[in-house]
Amino acid sequence: MRAQTSALRSKDLLGIEPLTPEEITLILDTAEGFKEVSERPVKKVPALRGQLVINLFMEASTRTRVSFEIAEKRLSADTLNFAASGSSVEKGETLIDTAANLMAMHPDMIVIRHKYPGAPRMLADRLPASIINAGDGSHEHPTQALLDAFTIRERLGRLSGVNVSIVGDIAHSRVVRSNIHLLTKMKANVTLAAPPTLIPAQVEEMGVRVVHSLDEALEGADVVMMLRIQLERQGKLSFPSLREYYNTFGLTGERLARAREGVLVMHPGPMNRGVEIASDVADGPASVILEQVTNGVAVRMAVLYLLAGGHLAE
Amino acid sequence: MRAQTSALRSKDLLGIEPLTPEEITLILDTAEGFKEVSERPVKKVPALRGQLVINLFMEASTRTRVSFEIAEKRLSADTLNFAASGSSVEKGETLIDTAANLMAMHPDMIVIRHKYPGAPRMLADRLPASIINAGDGSHEHPTQALLDAFTIRERLGRLSGVNVSIVGDIAHSRVVRSNIHLLTKMKANVTLAAPPTLIPAQVEEMGVRVVHSLDEALEGADVVMMLRIQLERQGKLSFPSLREYYNTFGLTGERLARAREGVLVMHPGPMNRGVEIASDVADGPASVILEQVTNGVAVRMAVLYLLAGGHLAE
Amino acid sequence: MRAQTSALRSKDLLGIEPLTPEEITLILDTAEGFKEVSERPVKKVPALRGQLVINLFMEASTRTRVSFEIAEKRLSADTLNFAASGSSVEKGETLIDTAANLMAMHPDMIVIRHKYPGAPRMLADRLPASIINAGDGSHEHPTQALLDAFTIRERLGRLSGVNVSIVGDIAHSRVVRSNIHLLTKMKANVTLAAPPTLIPAQVEEMGVRVVHSLDEALEGADVVMMLRIQLERQGKLSFPSLREYYNTFGLTGERLARAREGVLVMHPGPMNRGVEIASDVADGPASVILEQVTNGVAVRMAVLYLLAGGHLAE
Repeated sequence: MRAQTSALRSKDLLGIEPLTPEEITLILDTAEGFKEVSERPVKKVPALRGQLVINLFMEASTRTRVSFEIAEKRLSADTLNFAASGSSVEKGETLIDTAANLMAMHPDMIVIRHKYPGAPRMLADRLPASIINAGDGSHEHPTQALLDAFTIRERLGRLSGVNVSIVGDIAHSRVVRSNIHLLTKMKANVTLAAPPTLIPAQVEEMGVRVVHSLDEALEGADVVMMLRIQLERQGKLSFPSLREYYNTFGLTGERLARAREGVLVMHPGPMNRGVEIASDVADGPASVILEQVTNGVAVRMAVLYLLAGGHLAE
Repeated sequence: MRAQTSALRSKDLLGIEPLTPEEITLILDTAEGFKEVSERPVKKVPALRGQLVINLFMEASTRTRVSFEIAEKRLSADTLNFAASGSSVEKGETLIDTAANLMAMHPDMIVIRHKYPGAPRMLADRLPASIINAGDGSHEHPTQALLDAFTIRERLGRLSGVNVSIVGDIAHSRVVRSNIHLLTKMKANVTLAAPPTLIPAQVEEMGVRVVHSLDEALEGADVVMMLRIQLERQGKLSFPSLREYYNTFGLTGERLARAREGVLVMHPGPMNRGVEIASDVADGPASVILEQVTNGVAVRMAVLYLLAGGHLAE
Repeated sequence: MRAQTSALRSKDLLGIEPLTPEEITLILDTAEGFKEVSERPVKKVPALRGQLVINLFMEASTRTRVSFEIAEKRLSADTLNFAASGSSVEKGETLIDTAANLMAMHPDMIVIRHKYPGAPRMLADRLPASIINAGDGSHEHPTQALLDAFTIRERLGRLSGVNVSIVGDIAHSRVVRSNIHLLTKMKANVTLAAPPTLIPAQVEEMGVRVVHSLDEALEGADVVMMLRIQLERQGKLSFPSLREYYNTFGLTGERLARAREGVLVMHPGPMNRGVEIASDVADGPASVILEQVTNGVAVRMAVLYLLAGGHLAE
């Protein structure tokens, strides 16, 4: 499908919720071109030469930070990592001072991860730089949803009408929120499966189906997206034990055999092998988990490029 | 004013004290040209291409390190961050070994921040690389004073005859020492204001006036420079309480109203809002605090460029 | 001596043990050319432009990491530092997941330091990228041995027939293992000297001579290589005291005077001055310790270049 639009309306990418289906398609189409760049011997285009991108990671992250940094370097941007530690930058008020100071150095873009939902918007409202949300609390993680969508579209040829089941810790996940927004906008059918304690109230109002068993979720699914159990985030487990969780919601080879031929298994990483997913499934033929990682670089290149004012040659 | 000289005499920038007024003017004139670079779409000049700058920060710093790193990248230098942590590099003797090892890798310049006054000179005496002092204990922080002077000159058109009042923790501040050297060399009139416990003995011998109330400092000032209360440096507070400090030396809108029309409010950052400065002043029309940050990149570009042997086209 | 070969057989550099003498000579010859690059005003060649090198340091290191990073930048590679901290990446199993994820982002090379011997091979067997071992537990540290050999060859004109005495903590050292492999392959004569508790059993089977006094080691030596006492690695000291160690195996000026005229003193760094080596020896005319550091950059440039498929112009 060709994009019906050739530019993003906003200077920022704060979430999937504000995007139109045309904008989503534009990003995915643009990412197709950039995926090829990462396969060349010289993995570099001059698109962002002389532009400064600050990676402002106020919450621990390696894989997302690394993926953004690679994307920036492949676009020839200058990159600067600013990993806040210590208390002075952990309060909302001081985030504004930190950002105002960074802004005074004229960066073109700021990629921000922050534990407070809305921190990226707070910056976007105040600063002329493009702000890219790399995960804000339990709110959104838009580039993750975009790379998931890219992977599905690349494998299945479309998003519309695809049955996507998302399984696991729905309540604590910004990944799932961004994915629900994206998949429903693109007319995919979304099913959520989790123990009742891990499903937020009224989530059906977002246009999704909720089931409470993994077998129901697998039935008819084209894609099954397993979420990470955020062991480090939950004050205490919302279910009896990891073993119990694995026995009821862990994706094993035996359970996966009940799904459709050709079903795709996805995971945003990092995986807890033996908790939400069995190793033979993670490494098996249905898994597209490492393709997601590869596609993450291409999607982030596309977002950076489009926000910098790039236009897709038609 | 045109610079009377076209090069710096030393290979290093260890402080303001050794500079002549002509050298200071050369740096400020050069920075004017570089300020414009940071406003271009392609914020980069090839001046230091293929040169290696090591940022050796042996004391925590984010804003100064970030400002230098951006300046280096805008000059196309290769940069390497070396943040020493742990005890092995904290003794003076081992600093020499660390530096000798770094030097053996042929860097062109080393930007150093260190808690010991004189650490940059120790390196400068032993190494052929250009050494730039990014703050050494309570000794000097020359690029801060240069960016302050740049900001005053840009706003007021001159340094000579300008009345600058510096208020706050004079005793613990390398920023104030560098500023006193610079401003007196450039024939500005400097007034220091602080509680007696925060003023070092015999400071008047540096050619400055000392007063003990903020109102006296504000009287006739063209510029009021508020210093950060270094809460983390003082073993214990040298004044009764933060509230008491704010009531007597904190710069509030009400107090500032007694100063001249057009007075400039400066602060080297990071600010303690509600301690040495009220938020409405920090963010108000008299404040040039964020301009200082912007000018910091330009001034550091100028210093790097001139030490690398650049000459200002006349 | 001219190299008899113009390429490395393996895509990886996991150790010295798998290399042929011709391959070692090829690396050293190639490094000669690169040493000159670091002495130019523009210290950069475009050899690896657009290639991505990930520095995966899972164990603390500054000097080796810095040396590799400088080598990569002088070859115009894009570099990315990934310093794992925390427990999730410290288990062998998870190293594979980490590496698979990094690999999915298409790096061309991964430089790895890891506390487990064999970690680099585990990656090399699974990933198409070139893996360079920057030190794996007590196994190998091949680029250190190569830079040592480069330094000896440059100073003495040959490796064959040179008498090299290695003194100190033989048992805990990956440096010494790589050096024994390299020096015996190149037909140098290797003598090891240490207290009995610091010599591993059956080490003579590697083709080396073992002595138990420093004077015996110095007798007839062309090169004396002092090893660092790894104070931080040993649960407890394997000898009575540091003072006792210095008195029996520390290299002092007085002891060195008994060695041949022109003997070279080497040390892989960082030195414990006053433990394994006296300061006047470390800084004296026989010392080539800082030359080793300089040569380290050239040797690492050669390794990166050759693994990237470079060929030495004949």
